[in-house]
Amino acid sequence: MVDAVKNQTNSDSSTQLADRIEDSERLDEASGSMTIDKADARIDTAALGQYLLGTWADARIAARALTGRPEMQRVDGQTLSEHRDTVFHQLGLLVEHGGVHKAFPKSLGGEDDHGGNIAGFEELVTADPSLQIKSGVQWGLFGAAVLHLGTQYHHEKFLPAIMSLEVPGAFAMTETGHGSDVAAIATTATFDVGSQEFVIDTPFRGAWKDYLGNAAVHGTAAVLFAQLITEGINHGVHAFYVPLRDADGQFLPGVGGEDDGLKGGLNGIDNGRLHFTNVRIPRENLLNRYGDVDVDGTYSSPIQSPGRRFFTMLGTLVQGRVSLDGASVAAAKVALAIAVRYGNERRQFTAGSDTDEEVILDYQVHQRRLIPLIATTYAASFAHEQLLTKFDGVFSGATDTDADRQDLETLAAALKPLSTWHALDTLQEAREACGGAGFLAENRLVGLRADLDVYATFEGDNHVLLQLVAKRLLTDYSRRFAKADVGVLARYVVEQAADRTVSGSGLRTLAQNLSDRGSVARSVEQLREPGAQRALLTDRVETMVAEVAGRLRPGTKASKQVAADLFNANQSAVIDAARAHAELLQWEAFTDALDHIDDEGTRVVLTWVRDLFGLGLVEKHLAWYLINGRLSPKRAQAVTAYIDRLIARLRPHAQDLVDAFGYGSEHIRASIATGAEATRQKEARDYYAEQRASGEAPIDEKTLSKKQKERI
Amino acid sequence: MVDAVKNQTNSDSSTQLADRIEDSERLDEASGSMTIDKADARIDTAALGQYLLGTWADARIAARALTGRPEMQRVDGQTLSEHRDTVFHQLGLLVEHGGVHKAFPKSLGGEDDHGGNIAGFEELVTADPSLQIKSGVQWGLFGAAVLHLGTQYHHEKFLPAIMSLEVPGAFAMTETGHGSDVAAIATTATFDVGSQEFVIDTPFRGAWKDYLGNAAVHGTAAVLFAQLITEGINHGVHAFYVPLRDADGQFLPGVGGEDDGLKGGLNGIDNGRLHFTNVRIPRENLLNRYGDVDVDGTYSSPIQSPGRRFFTMLGTLVQGRVSLDGASVAAAKVALAIAVRYGNERRQFTAGSDTDEEVILDYQVHQRRLIPLIATTYAASFAHEQLLTKFDGVFSGATDTDADRQDLETLAAALKPLSTWHALDTLQEAREACGGAGFLAENRLVGLRADLDVYATFEGDNHVLLQLVAKRLLTDYSRRFAKADVGVLARYVVEQAADRTVSGSGLRTLAQNLSDRGSVARSVEQLREPGAQRALLTDRVETMVAEVAGRLRPGTKASKQVAADLFNANQSAVIDAARAHAELLQWEAFTDALDHIDDEGTRVVLTWVRDLFGLGLVEKHLAWYLINGRLSPKRAQAVTAYIDRLIARLRPHAQDLVDAFGYGSEHIRASIATGAEATRQKEARDYYAEQRASGEAPIDEKTLSKKQKERI
Repeated sequence: MVDAVKNQTNSDSSTQLADRIEDSERLDEASGSMTIDKADARIDTAALGQYLLGTWADARIAARALTGRPEMQRVDGQTLSEHRDTVFHQLGLLVEHGGVHKAFPKSLGGEDDHGGNIAGFEELVTADPSLQIKSGVQWGLFGAAVLHLGTQYHHEKFLPAIMSLEVPGAFAMTETGHGSDVAAIATTATFDVGSQEFVIDTPFRGAWKDYLGNAAVHGTAAVLFAQLITEGINHGVHAFYVPLRDADGQFLPGVGGEDDGLKGGLNGIDNGRLHFTNVRIPRENLLNRYGDVDVDGTYSSPIQSPGRRFFTMLGTLVQGRVSLDGASVAAAKVALAIAVRYGNERRQFTAGSDTDEEVILDYQVHQRRLIPLIATTYAASFAHEQLLTKFDGVFSGATDTDADRQDLETLAAALKPLSTWHALDTLQEAREACGGAGFLAENRLVGLRADLDVYATFEGDNHVLLQLVAKRLLTDYSRRFAKADVGVLARYVVEQAADRTVSGSGLRTLAQNLSDRGSVARSVEQLREPGAQRALLTDRVETMVAEVAGRLRPGTKASKQVAADLFNANQSAVIDAARAHAELLQWEAFTDALDHIDDEGTRVVLTWVRDLFGLGLVEKHLAWYLINGRLSPKRAQAVTAYIDRLIARLRPHAQDLVDAFGYGSEHIRASIATGAEATRQKEARDYYAEQRASGEAPIDEKTLSKKQKERI
Repeated sequence: MVDAVKNQTNSDSSTQLADRIEDSERLDEASGSMTIDKADARIDTAALGQYLLGTWADARIAARALTGRPEMQRVDGQTLSEHRDTVFHQLGLLVEHGGVHKAFPKSLGGEDDHGGNIAGFEELVTADPSLQIKSGVQWGLFGAAVLHLGTQYHHEKFLPAIMSLEVPGAFAMTETGHGSDVAAIATTATFDVGSQEFVIDTPFRGAWKDYLGNAAVHGTAAVLFAQLITEGINHGVHAFYVPLRDADGQFLPGVGGEDDGLKGGLNGIDNGRLHFTNVRIPRENLLNRYGDVDVDGTYSSPIQSPGRRFFTMLGTLVQGRVSLDGASVAAAKVALAIAVRYGNERRQFTAGSDTDEEVILDYQVHQRRLIPLIATTYAASFAHEQLLTKFDGVFSGATDTDADRQDLETLAAALKPLSTWHALDTLQEAREACGGAGFLAENRLVGLRADLDVYATFEGDNHVLLQLVAKRLLTDYSRRFAKADVGVLARYVVEQAADRTVSGSGLRTLAQNLSDRGSVARSVEQLREPGAQRALLTDRVETMVAEVAGRLRPGTKASKQVAADLFNANQSAVIDAARAHAELLQWEAFTDALDHIDDEGTRVVLTWVRDLFGLGLVEKHLAWYLINGRLSPKRAQAVTAYIDRLIARLRPHAQDLVDAFGYGSEHIRASIATGAEATRQKEARDYYAEQRASGEAPIDEKTLSKKQKERI
């Protein structure tokens, strides 16, 4: 099965070398178990599609059956109020068709199925992101807050009407003055022992609740977050169940608000502002799982530390981030399904022939624009499946330790920024790759992009989330140090010293340069080893974290202001480290997934996709690898050359790769991705062929000689 | 004036070194003529604002007076048809208030003022991009085609009604099947000698005209591009004046079409599709400046080469690209004015204090996100002014040689992609930097971004334009070679050999590493020299062009297919080279502009901005500089460290830098950039201060000791 490596003379071009190596490369080198020739590798799209559906395949399939129905889908061109009405009506259909109650307790008609609930929920994005987010507000935030922050009393009293949509509700956490910094919200809930009521107040304009879905029109109640004050002590942010409107839709006494109006997208949701003046609610309306007030005004909580209590309460809301991660992956899949189909049918410019125009996905730049996005989408999809599994483990109680909860939050905080930004990048690149057609609403890309825009900043601003991840990395790092025996410490010292040597004199770079001389072949081979990719990606994360930790260390003994300044001076580096970590997580998830692909041809192609993703990350951060002496200039060049090679090799599989996403025309719904373009191309070619055959084609002036021209 | 450089011990941190150098740096080192201390440097915003208005300041000021009027401005939330009606009405107001006829001949009531026309036109983007583009369709494309492609007969017969908006018209060039490849459009105009008419036909669906502004509703005529066929010969694409609709708005016989419907933005423009079946127009409706058909059907043209003739005709339409470049810069300015103002008022999280929250622009990452965008906006603004000057020179006839026209087209093709993408990046970053508030339509960022999205692909797809630029660079390069004496050739050979040495053994890298040892100081100083920045940027362009040219050379003697494959295999490199060239042009324009800044303080600050832009480019392409041995790892690190330093230094000037853009609240029109945020912050702070002063503030549970807690 093994061809001899072709014996060619040396060449300076690393591209040529990479080609040569790849041409002679045997698959059994890439994976011991493979026995087919790479030229024969094909994706089994049905099997891969099934694998991509993941653990909660049934929930996804059921949700896709629903999202494929026209009455569940976005109608372009509706006014703000029409769109809001449509989506509200669709929420009713969701209740009718089931599926949105999966996460609620069986005792109340739910299924206690947390993973399946999110899997189905995130699929709604292909029908209309407004539908996804509005149902997320109703059941994933408003309802889930009652479920997770309330106790049996609240479950029995409030959940049935929430589940049935009889009571549409808002999740009143964010204020005009405070979004990311929830602990600093200013709305107060002061306990009045005399009347056994909490008194809700908005002390100033900045404390208005803002951007709340269901607040402008439909919401008749809210879970409201406010500073709980009793006996003169502020016990921090707690959640309260607060009625908003009467049966006629009029605000109850003391409640006021306004409409947030038109937004950049998600206009099927009635976001609005709320304010409260001396609004009284019964003591029992405090959602009291993590903090309670007794009849005499005494505060109690199962969690002593106010900080930990706050983060525990917020932690129950992680599912929002989980589902945005999944919905973003779904949107990227739809975008690529549209752009790749169109790129495979659309023709523009003749290049290698006088008459036949090229399919635009045959252009190198078009491939460079779209195929790496396919690779990242696969990585994000596999990473999301791991996140969903982790989430289900925690919320089902199967694996629900403190450490599990922390890991879940860190994982969600790491992946959500990457996938939401990736969806925006993908939708935009797909839009531009489809030219003017991509700008028409009928081709979906602009609408999806407009809707998903805010995914980057809500449910946790992406930068703020990455900073949380970085803090966790730094904490873990300092713990390793605290517990470290001399050996571990010594290893770090040696590594640091080695780094310094590299920066100081370039000695390691030099050594690698010399050893690389004439051995680009080996360097390319190494790069496609998963071990080499893992080492490069892991090394970068560890080095960055260690460097930042080292630079922040003086702050641990400094004043608050000095420590803050020091942290701020390193904030970019902190966030870069978190991003590197998240990228590594995606790469590991992709690599894990490869082990579960049974079909050889599929595994071969997907391994190339994984390599493209991994080496794409290395290329993106190439300057870092060069500066830090991890790659020689020669090897760095080989990275790009090999990426070009991988892209060319994946080009014939592009359609299969997006077909495996499993979305049908009822989900994609873009005129340019229906085959209309291929039909048009054929009609034009047939027309010209017939014209030539019949001798009726006009002569092209360009083909006339000067003499012929003069004669005419 | 010169302090001694502080004598500090060596440190490994290049950041610290950079700080030290900068602290001791004297301004008279940066510019011989400066006499003030950099700590005192302030921007004279009024003077800088005046300079930014450029040569056609009067036209801009007049246009801004108009765009500041509410009746000229976008009304959010209108339906498609309301928005179209509004914009059409606004076009009428433009006629009424003058300003849109500047480019037309004085004999017809115009001013023959081409630069002033574009300057005013691009300012319309701040009122509503739909207004800018719809007026661009009417007067910049439809009218300009009659002006530039027609002759006196057409000017007299058609222009008055076009100028007055009596005849709204479409520019019918693009077809569903062909956008970028205009030469391949399929609509035919066949001359019928018997009736002395051209017969317009759409042979198949792909040949429908598409995406045409004014085509869906308002257009009663069009300038139509079609293959001119007479006496059995196709003379290529020519333009024809074709009536579309009667006085009642009904299509004329043989004309049909449909509405493009909702788009991602620019919905004030009625884009649509048109098709023609045996539509007859008089022979005289051929816009015959560059090609004519005699009564007997004989074709004639002042330009013999059909290829050159085609590009000459298209070349008259370059003003569209020029104005998109300027409008994109204007939109980026508005976006930054919003985000910087908000970033300077909005507070979030306490960091260095227990009570006072930080202004978000004081966070390093927020600065890193916004301040480099300010620098690029200045670069793009100065580059646009040079483009506009070049454009005016050519169109006024003052400097109108073939070479001038080619330079103008190359310059427009280079700058339009960079500025349109930059505007989208800036609008998006500004939107995210404003969080949820940025997503509200009332804060303008999402609307502007949605509208400007298509700027990246219309009037020349950005990638296609960059490829044109690259072809020009490659042509120039091969000409230099063709004429080169032995000396020049030898220089290239030496350079190429040097490159090979670097890649092959890293010898040059090594040498630089060694010489850099202990002299980061000097390397930082060198980087802020304009000469060093120019050398780095120019070297990269020249090297990339030479490398690509070398790789394409075998194609010159190969078959068409082989040459096409070779070009395609290098298409990414080709486009990267063009982009590098365009970036260099922006840097040069910025550097030129500094010479014209009289106020010292302003020049000092703007020099930092220019350095940030220049070094930002170097950082963006750092891997290239490292791989190609142009920067040592040490020096590469210094680039990033110095950028951090520049950003921190520019932070206090951020507001001045955006104030100098000169847009008033009537142009910015974002609720979050009106001072409302500062008012809200003050209200909140005053509330808490009063509460503390009165002793009514609840005690924070976090501040209680364990003992106190137990007591409670």
